[in-house]
Amino acid sequence: MIEEIFAPLAPAGAPAFGLSDDAAVYDPPAGRALVITKDVMAAGVHFPAGEDAGLVAQKLLRVNLSDLAAMGARPRAYTLSLALPEDRDEEWVGQFALALAAEQESFDLTLIGGDTVATPGRLTVTVTAFGTLPAGSELRRSNARAGDAVYVSGAIGDAALGLKVLKGELPDLAPEHARALKDRYHRPRPRVSLGPRLTDLANAAIDISDGLAADLGHVCAASGMAATIMAPRVPLSEAARAAVAADPGLMTAVLTGGDDYELLFTCAPDDAPAVAALSRELDLPLTAIGQVAEGDGSVRVIDANGRDMVLGDTGYRHF
Amino acid sequence: MIEEIFAPLAPAGAPAFGLSDDAAVYDPPAGRALVITKDVMAAGVHFPAGEDAGLVAQKLLRVNLSDLAAMGARPRAYTLSLALPEDRDEEWVGQFALALAAEQESFDLTLIGGDTVATPGRLTVTVTAFGTLPAGSELRRSNARAGDAVYVSGAIGDAALGLKVLKGELPDLAPEHARALKDRYHRPRPRVSLGPRLTDLANAAIDISDGLAADLGHVCAASGMAATIMAPRVPLSEAARAAVAADPGLMTAVLTGGDDYELLFTCAPDDAPAVAALSRELDLPLTAIGQVAEGDGSVRVIDANGRDMVLGDTGYRHF
Repeated sequence: MIEEIFAPLAPAGAPAFGLSDDAAVYDPPAGRALVITKDVMAAGVHFPAGEDAGLVAQKLLRVNLSDLAAMGARPRAYTLSLALPEDRDEEWVGQFALALAAEQESFDLTLIGGDTVATPGRLTVTVTAFGTLPAGSELRRSNARAGDAVYVSGAIGDAALGLKVLKGELPDLAPEHARALKDRYHRPRPRVSLGPRLTDLANAAIDISDGLAADLGHVCAASGMAATIMAPRVPLSEAARAAVAADPGLMTAVLTGGDDYELLFTCAPDDAPAVAALSRELDLPLTAIGQVAEGDGSVRVIDANGRDMVLGDTGYRHF
Repeated sequence: MIEEIFAPLAPAGAPAFGLSDDAAVYDPPAGRALVITKDVMAAGVHFPAGEDAGLVAQKLLRVNLSDLAAMGARPRAYTLSLALPEDRDEEWVGQFALALAAEQESFDLTLIGGDTVATPGRLTVTVTAFGTLPAGSELRRSNARAGDAVYVSGAIGDAALGLKVLKGELPDLAPEHARALKDRYHRPRPRVSLGPRLTDLANAAIDISDGLAADLGHVCAASGMAATIMAPRVPLSEAARAAVAADPGLMTAVLTGGDDYELLFTCAPDDAPAVAALSRELDLPLTAIGQVAEGDGSVRVIDANGRDMVLGDTGYRHF
């Protein structure tokens, strides 16, 4: 199966030798360090057991690319492990491989190795993704500094609202908004162009997978800092604005829902003009939503009336 | 859980940053290429569902190190993914991590990243292992040449016989032999010292995981060659010799059983003295068992009477 379905995804020469050997050989360009990330996704945990093969493939790869972007790395290659339930048919695997091929094209990366086993258990897929960056330039969570501005890319909350649409919890939303939100849930857009451009600019960065508040909390905890963000400044898509206008209580889901796969980064306030220029160049909103201060890892969220919002335990689940 | 149990396995600085970031950064030494291999193992497929945590950890890592050795790479680091059934207790995970720590010590490698999820399905563990070698020196399956001698390291067949012992199929074997064979099944000994020494010497190499005959077949198919091996020359441990002496039919299991994790390599006949010197230096038997010739990927096995052995479809299962 590997030979027929997956070998065409791998180049015939180095590094993967068409998946014909025991291992792949990867020779990073001179002066570049390799960035390595890994995500495992299991049916029934990260996606419903009956999920479309193409959506699983897309999400799996893009979640990994988002991690690379958060470190400032450019994606290059990946390896794939599949534990396939015995009742998965070849058609499912074929669709999965077809979607991977399209992703490789979109993101300019190649399959360099993998392993497939049949399992009596659930479908479990693991990707290890490889990126490169100038040695020593990686972005960390732990370097946020007092006085830094907190920025996010794109728009926040679409995926969490899209999940609510899929669950039938937002029946009154206009169809085009419902479609847009569902699409953002199904198809993360990893900020692969932005990440490598931040290595000279940002002090700390993370991708938003657990939710804006939680991931900013991770940065604060790792940096030994605290942060305050202004909820009204958090950028929303047109669809999310419509949903929140109809039910302001949804703002909690926006701030705490996961699966955004936008980048959150902090940088010195003096760099605001450089951030604005980068935003124009990439045609991607980069919005200042708050500030870093000395502190103990805590995150405050201030609402439009200047009051602290209590977000509570959000218990975000990925589906 | 990751923080408490696995973070101590990862260095606080680069490349893993104590597992605190989205990804690991790995900067191979100058002039070294990175070799990457991946194995996924699932409960009920590669090991029994109730297998000891330490044995799972050992086998998982060592199988990957064997793949690196087959390419000629020195092991350096690994990432780990765990899909943990909800009923696995912390004690199991703790034992698993403890065994990994001991393996890291034995093989001089570090954990640089990973991902853990709870799953309603079976335990599935994936390791991606990283090794390094001088750029361009990797050993391939596909470079065997007509006239090459076929060598194997160590002794062949112990793991397959050990599995038979575990299944109660060899009740008359002396207890010390039974113990030795079971141990070889449970604890592969990846030839990490030998592999990197073969890059200057061997034309083709592979590790024996599917069985001697099948893996030599892989080399022949990839190289567009054929091979003939002499069954009486295949090196057996004392325990395996005792088992085969009692039941000569077991020789088929020796030649076709998997999980040996010895290295099979081919090299020019003129290099015999260099192979012999290397064997003495590493204190590891390296035994010539046959020859490569022009051909179509086939493997002939000749018995003590000069007759072709018919090995048939062996259907080796890993437990």
